[in-house]
Amino acid sequence: MIKIGIIGGTGYTGVELLRLLAAHPQADLRVITSRGEAGKQVAELFPNLRGHVRLAFSEPDPKALAGCDVVFSATPNGVAMTHARELVNSGVKLIDLAADFRLRDPATWEQWYGVPHACPELLAEAVYGLPEVNREKIRKARLIANPGCYPTAVQLGFLPLLARDLVDAQHLVADAKSGVSGAGKKAEVHTLFSEAADSMKAYAVAGHRHWPEIRQGLEAAYRKPVGLTFVPHLAPMIRGIHATLYARLTRPVEDLQALFEQHYAKEPFVDVMPAGSHPETRSVRAANVCRLAVHRPPNNSNGSGDTVVVLAVIDNLVKGAAGQAIQNMNILFGLDERAGLRQAGVLP
Amino acid sequence: MIKIGIIGGTGYTGVELLRLLAAHPQADLRVITSRGEAGKQVAELFPNLRGHVRLAFSEPDPKALAGCDVVFSATPNGVAMTHARELVNSGVKLIDLAADFRLRDPATWEQWYGVPHACPELLAEAVYGLPEVNREKIRKARLIANPGCYPTAVQLGFLPLLARDLVDAQHLVADAKSGVSGAGKKAEVHTLFSEAADSMKAYAVAGHRHWPEIRQGLEAAYRKPVGLTFVPHLAPMIRGIHATLYARLTRPVEDLQALFEQHYAKEPFVDVMPAGSHPETRSVRAANVCRLAVHRPPNNSNGSGDTVVVLAVIDNLVKGAAGQAIQNMNILFGLDERAGLRQAGVLP
Amino acid sequence: MIKIGIIGGTGYTGVELLRLLAAHPQADLRVITSRGEAGKQVAELFPNLRGHVRLAFSEPDPKALAGCDVVFSATPNGVAMTHARELVNSGVKLIDLAADFRLRDPATWEQWYGVPHACPELLAEAVYGLPEVNREKIRKARLIANPGCYPTAVQLGFLPLLARDLVDAQHLVADAKSGVSGAGKKAEVHTLFSEAADSMKAYAVAGHRHWPEIRQGLEAAYRKPVGLTFVPHLAPMIRGIHATLYARLTRPVEDLQALFEQHYAKEPFVDVMPAGSHPETRSVRAANVCRLAVHRPPNNSNGSGDTVVVLAVIDNLVKGAAGQAIQNMNILFGLDERAGLRQAGVLP
Amino acid sequence: MIKIGIIGGTGYTGVELLRLLAAHPQADLRVITSRGEAGKQVAELFPNLRGHVRLAFSEPDPKALAGCDVVFSATPNGVAMTHARELVNSGVKLIDLAADFRLRDPATWEQWYGVPHACPELLAEAVYGLPEVNREKIRKARLIANPGCYPTAVQLGFLPLLARDLVDAQHLVADAKSGVSGAGKKAEVHTLFSEAADSMKAYAVAGHRHWPEIRQGLEAAYRKPVGLTFVPHLAPMIRGIHATLYARLTRPVEDLQALFEQHYAKEPFVDVMPAGSHPETRSVRAANVCRLAVHRPPNNSNGSGDTVVVLAVIDNLVKGAAGQAIQNMNILFGLDERAGLRQAGVLP
Repeated sequence: MIKIGIIGGTGYTGVELLRLLAAHPQADLRVITSRGEAGKQVAELFPNLRGHVRLAFSEPDPKALAGCDVVFSATPNGVAMTHARELVNSGVKLIDLAADFRLRDPATWEQWYGVPHACPELLAEAVYGLPEVNREKIRKARLIANPGCYPTAVQLGFLPLLARDLVDAQHLVADAKSGVSGAGKKAEVHTLFSEAADSMKAYAVAGHRHWPEIRQGLEAAYRKPVGLTFVPHLAPMIRGIHATLYARLTRPVEDLQALFEQHYAKEPFVDVMPAGSHPETRSVRAANVCRLAVHRPPNNSNGSGDTVVVLAVIDNLVKGAAGQAIQNMNILFGLDERAGLRQAGVLP
Repeated sequence: MIKIGIIGGTGYTGVELLRLLAAHPQADLRVITSRGEAGKQVAELFPNLRGHVRLAFSEPDPKALAGCDVVFSATPNGVAMTHARELVNSGVKLIDLAADFRLRDPATWEQWYGVPHACPELLAEAVYGLPEVNREKIRKARLIANPGCYPTAVQLGFLPLLARDLVDAQHLVADAKSGVSGAGKKAEVHTLFSEAADSMKAYAVAGHRHWPEIRQGLEAAYRKPVGLTFVPHLAPMIRGIHATLYARLTRPVEDLQALFEQHYAKEPFVDVMPAGSHPETRSVRAANVCRLAVHRPPNNSNGSGDTVVVLAVIDNLVKGAAGQAIQNMNILFGLDERAGLRQAGVLP
Repeated sequence: MIKIGIIGGTGYTGVELLRLLAAHPQADLRVITSRGEAGKQVAELFPNLRGHVRLAFSEPDPKALAGCDVVFSATPNGVAMTHARELVNSGVKLIDLAADFRLRDPATWEQWYGVPHACPELLAEAVYGLPEVNREKIRKARLIANPGCYPTAVQLGFLPLLARDLVDAQHLVADAKSGVSGAGKKAEVHTLFSEAADSMKAYAVAGHRHWPEIRQGLEAAYRKPVGLTFVPHLAPMIRGIHATLYARLTRPVEDLQALFEQHYAKEPFVDVMPAGSHPETRSVRAANVCRLAVHRPPNNSNGSGDTVVVLAVIDNLVKGAAGQAIQNMNILFGLDERAGLRQAGVLP
Repeated sequence: MIKIGIIGGTGYTGVELLRLLAAHPQADLRVITSRGEAGKQVAELFPNLRGHVRLAFSEPDPKALAGCDVVFSATPNGVAMTHARELVNSGVKLIDLAADFRLRDPATWEQWYGVPHACPELLAEAVYGLPEVNREKIRKARLIANPGCYPTAVQLGFLPLLARDLVDAQHLVADAKSGVSGAGKKAEVHTLFSEAADSMKAYAVAGHRHWPEIRQGLEAAYRKPVGLTFVPHLAPMIRGIHATLYARLTRPVEDLQALFEQHYAKEPFVDVMPAGSHPETRSVRAANVCRLAVHRPPNNSNGSGDTVVVLAVIDNLVKGAAGQAIQNMNILFGLDERAGLRQAGVLP
């Protein structure tokens, strides 16, 4: 059994971690900390966990955390970097679900997150936890930066094209639609039901924090600079990201479908759907899978077209957060990568 | 008072026509036909109209329709073309809310709608009822093809760029999200609440009937062929279209914001929002307005970018259907173009 | 033209007042105050009002308000009672959309709202603005307490039964379901989209502030004490209240349908639907109407039943708040009671 | 391993059975029949099951079904009764998820379902599969009538009160709100997204098929006739039933909370929440549990009240259908009753 600690599990990634770990055959949840909720039963805050989680939130206690094999940090951005060094030095594996260790360049981090990075030396060591790219590095990591939700969907969709240098990488377009849970459980006006229901809007068109993260990942695969226009949208659904990706082919390509299928043939959590498919976000609701479809529609009256359209769906709280974090834990500890993550999506 | 007939008003564009006409100061609704509902009170089918519409549905009666000044045809595609000639010849103005007269080329119509066109000679005469483009032609028309919902949003967003030849018109991208009412009131599985709620999906990526309509409109403005990748999505909301448009600049342009504002300065129903805005579909719910915002986000690490992003929102049943049809009626009969269409959006 | 002021119009009743007043033929909106948003254009906060409201929010200014004919107070509970006396003394009619003047007994007010009442002498004078009950008193009022949303629906449903003393008034049951906008625009966790969507719950079963208000109104009609079990529920919709009312008949009654129709025969905004109907909240979306249906279902194997079921739907922001406030204004100033309130419901 | 067959698994109870069985450690799904979809892969119809169910739908084949240990019948009402005898005679355990064997009296069945019962002799033998009532009979049954969704929630809520004869059983009131998936996957207008979203309505107030089923169950516990007013409502959510139950106390009772807790102390799938709780349907989303809370609110100005309010929530597709069917299977075959049913609810 893996001894597990969670720092700050009162938000949506927290409750999702708890739900998934409760069904994980090797997980032994030892401690879950929260300054604000210390003393309260987890199941009191999250009644879906009644009968599943018997722990109470506790004050952060370095000793208790140091006794764990792995700690998930599910705090807001900017917190994990203040306690990471101590934890890592004590021999605990740290998986950060926030953004603190996702960007390799401290200057870029400061530009997008507004404060200097508290431990830039760990930035260099941290492994970006996208298993489909970094599985081998993850195995040996001490500190894993769990990817953001948009970056997971957008990278998994573009990578097969960039890896083979098939498209104009200076003009990629990612039009992404997210459910409201992606904004977290903070009390804010714009995510109230009465504001977000029965409506759609784009936001942060001028610049979203996931944009440099996505570009960093794509450039690592492409080994050259990448130009990306990324427009996130708020959609009136609880969970789910639908990324619609556009790229212009620069070289002839015979069979995009086969290319995608081969690229992900061995991946347990990337599902390339049959040609012509349109994945729905609900097909991955509560499941740790990214479903992809690739299209090349005509764009002119000749019926030809040089623009590839990739459709990628994930559950932002699972493959886009808590599920992927557990997938990383499984890899770290040599478990079956699918342990605790075999649930089918909840549909309808 | 304008004597008005409606053919086939039992669907969503029908009930929206009725709601708007009930508040129109010059509208005198004389007849509304429906084979299936003949004899039933309109307000029995649509209880929101209790106290507002006292008419009953009646069997189609050419004489009754011929006594009207204008007839709105709100039937499924392929019906209006079978009765258009008779109505137009009888001196009635005909506004078709379906697709029968939107495409100028009969062969293209047949390709996308699956049957030969029943009166191609009227196709040539029909005026495409996008007032922002064809206002003068609409004034004198006998037959108006009311634009589709996606085409309204996408054309209004792209036209200022194409009119000035500023972008690569061979690689336009329109990523459009629609509420479910766009699919109509037919009983079908994929638009059931349990199928469409809390989920998103793209559909018809290989080809949607609105694609040739949009391209036809853009090419008329651009006077050259246009390449367009159009991906419609089903979003879990009742009304609303959010079109996110991407185009690559091919020439330097100083002030996109001013360009859009000037282009639509005199338009009563196109609202160019301040720079940096993100229009929400709910801001136009139940209102006859298209709200636009134009952005030019950075797409690389230099902070520059050559991709314009236009955000366009409409209510698919109003500016995308019934409201635009009434706007066309107002123009046809020399009324104030805003008559009956002054309602603000319903928010929240 | 009626010169109008609004105090605190930044919430949902505020934006709804503004939307409806913008279409009111006799309304001249002069001032709208907000400490938090002073200086900001109304249409910047509420983009649906772009082109409809050109005013900016201003700091509260007693002189400006005193120059109005009527002031709507749309502030949180407990604010109107602090400025009511000054306004009323200056000759302005005051319509309070909050709860400050709804309960006649200061002790009850203090019990439910947690603070002593600031001007109990005005409590006695204030008229409870349910036009279907108090139309004549409203005409001459200086201060009107606009009813709560639940109380409007529940009272309109029970009143015909209580007025004729037909039911066991000691055991009334009101099971009410409300859209989330009823909770206002405050940033709170429990009304976030991700908390309230795709779920239902009862709340405040032990006691809700609208319970004494409803009982006060029912007792005024019944002229004896009334026992009421009131259970409000949060439903995943933006607007709308559906009240399902249960009462046990204590006397034989021939025709409940006729009784309800007669009771409301002259009311412009109460619509008794045909026997057997099931009103939908969407049929009154954005409209100032209460739709009612009355049933007497069997409750045992003999097929008989002595329990009356009344179904009542309103839009909580219109007939349950802003629309009813304007209806009260119309009565106060001798206008057509329907002025500015003729809109049909928005469906779908 | 239990060899399992499913008849007619193309609807929502079907896909939910498949999702749950895919994670059941003793389930060996052998055959799933569908006339309409024969030959199609299950995962093609239900993409959430890609990678989880590798079976294809097949034509109904009595021999294949007879080789199973248990067959779930998930067909529309009126189908199971035509094949039940043959299956039962062949030694297969049959669990019918439709209504065919729920009512013990053939005349009542015919009255509510409109056709004579095809095998009334099995009606007498069938065990009503509410484990909290009939666990011992279920163990030995050949044919189990899986309860309806409303009946599960309403019975579990009322039973502790009726079992102790504490309330006026002639005037029970059950106000129930259901998600739209309860209406099934048939293409119908009233369950379209655009009809059912953002709205609420009661339906079938004059009589719903679950009303005789509930009364039969309550009378079995009460051993006397019961009077029940049952009003179902359609709520804009996918899954979930929220039943709000009202009953008038006829005898003094000290501690309702303790009474409910004791009644269900040993039940693995009934969760009596702490006093003062308000269960949310989302807390049981995708989980096989009924959460209950019991209240006794004041109903008059003395602060006392004799009306008990019970709040009961279930997922209509799990504890209200497929999950309960699997619970019955577990009991039938002597497995751990919780096998395959340990999932926590999906929240948010």
